[in-house]
Amino acid sequence: MISRDDVEAARARTGSRVLRTPVLRRDDGLWLKLEQLQHTGSFKARGAFNRVLAAVEGGGLPEAGVIAASGGNAGLAYAYAARELGARAEVFVPETAPAVKVARLRALGASVRQVGREYAEAYEAATKRAADSGALFGHPYDQPEVCAGQGTLALELEEQTGGVDTVLVSVGGGGLMAGIAAALEGRSRVIAVEPERCPSLNAALAAGRPVDAPVSGVAADSLGARRVGEIPYAVARRTDVESLLVSDDDVIAARRALWQDHHIVVEHGTAAAYAALLTGAYTPSDDERVAVICCGANTDPADLA
Amino acid sequence: MISRDDVEAARARTGSRVLRTPVLRRDDGLWLKLEQLQHTGSFKARGAFNRVLAAVEGGGLPEAGVIAASGGNAGLAYAYAARELGARAEVFVPETAPAVKVARLRALGASVRQVGREYAEAYEAATKRAADSGALFGHPYDQPEVCAGQGTLALELEEQTGGVDTVLVSVGGGGLMAGIAAALEGRSRVIAVEPERCPSLNAALAAGRPVDAPVSGVAADSLGARRVGEIPYAVARRTDVESLLVSDDDVIAARRALWQDHHIVVEHGTAAAYAALLTGAYTPSDDERVAVICCGANTDPADLA
Repeated sequence: MISRDDVEAARARTGSRVLRTPVLRRDDGLWLKLEQLQHTGSFKARGAFNRVLAAVEGGGLPEAGVIAASGGNAGLAYAYAARELGARAEVFVPETAPAVKVARLRALGASVRQVGREYAEAYEAATKRAADSGALFGHPYDQPEVCAGQGTLALELEEQTGGVDTVLVSVGGGGLMAGIAAALEGRSRVIAVEPERCPSLNAALAAGRPVDAPVSGVAADSLGARRVGEIPYAVARRTDVESLLVSDDDVIAARRALWQDHHIVVEHGTAAAYAALLTGAYTPSDDERVAVICCGANTDPADLA
Repeated sequence: MISRDDVEAARARTGSRVLRTPVLRRDDGLWLKLEQLQHTGSFKARGAFNRVLAAVEGGGLPEAGVIAASGGNAGLAYAYAARELGARAEVFVPETAPAVKVARLRALGASVRQVGREYAEAYEAATKRAADSGALFGHPYDQPEVCAGQGTLALELEEQTGGVDTVLVSVGGGGLMAGIAAALEGRSRVIAVEPERCPSLNAALAAGRPVDAPVSGVAADSLGARRVGEIPYAVARRTDVESLLVSDDDVIAARRALWQDHHIVVEHGTAAAYAALLTGAYTPSDDERVAVICCGANTDPADLA
């Protein structure tokens, strides 16, 4: 479990290692937090830096460095954070990981291990390797330092906007949602938005605990956690995070609208949060101050042509 | 000729009609002004609103509305400003204008007139039509209200950054450069960057007056003014704007780097300013505070894949 104090500690710890990403205020008052401009193209850099720097504070990084299991944004973030801090990074991905993702990790200096046919196998190999080597294992979302690090985005947002009533955020494993909800507890409402085909938080809230949920569709590469994290789930319950679902078609349309109307390029997962507004799945009241988090841009923009 | 006073008047006049576009500060201190997120995807909305609103103040808009000659950013900006102000817009483009540009103008409610085989013919038809109908002719760059409107970007930049030593800006007809240079006269140095194949300001400074210059290459659609404006030229001379040239290959690489390194999509013309830094055509000193203006995103992102 994490609180605003943890997020404030994360901010002090990460400092200028992460970018203060800008906000855009639309004519209608909607705030867009442009976190897709963060290092490595997603909010994940915040949590990765906080996780690694907390270990440095707690006695120093192990010689074996940092280990992660992710061919996506989390892997890039840990590789980047390790490189910036002069540490080794080993990133486990499935054998099926696309060559372009492997190349991107290697370009950041990470050693890439391709293990197994599915993410679960790469994950298992990564945790085993971390246990054997003494390396620091960096989870994509379910560690307190990771969630608290992601929450630093919300402290910036508060300063940049003067505070909002409602934050709309896409959810996969739930780390970003948890960080924001903890940071803004008692200050802003947090609405979690998920594609119908990646409903990990929605399913957990319905079941009363984190459960396996189906993973497919256009946003699976960024929001495709099979199960929401224990920490994110607990924070969501404690802070009354509301969960909304949107269809893949809505996600696709919202991503396209962000480009056509605002010249902002994001990945499909990010567009889920915006889709909730476009479709009316969430309808703010007239004077409600609303922010949408644009959280990732690791996408191929070719289909926006 | 225009001065900072004109820019301040433009800002008071245009107010919240234009977006306060965000800035991103990189780790190395470089500021990127994200003006490509402006209404209609470029800075041109600033000048268009100032031109039209100045006419409103000066006795009201003519019944015939606003006329422009541009299949590009200026046309979009005048169409948008007219629509927002409840006025008619008529935009002249060559018969050869791509269907997608014509469709975009029509989507903003403009009447599109396709005249002649080249821009010069469309321009001539537009000015004649304005004279006949009494409509307000909105020039893409060479009117005082247009240059002053573009300069409002620099007042924002000053507030957002606390002031910079140097502003790098791409130049086509020169309206944006003129507005910035007038706004920041005696405060910041302005470096104008042009592709070698669209060197209108560079050629003018060499000749001692605006002269026709060749127009071709990757940035011709946004920077392809055959001749820099009289007002921009005069402001550039008065404020000692320095002119740099970059190659088309440099422009292409800079546009790609803005996407790959920063997840920012811009058109080729915009990338010229950034190219001057990447290539070392401009090398700031260690403690120099530098801003690069990202001024347009009306581009097909497909080739960034």
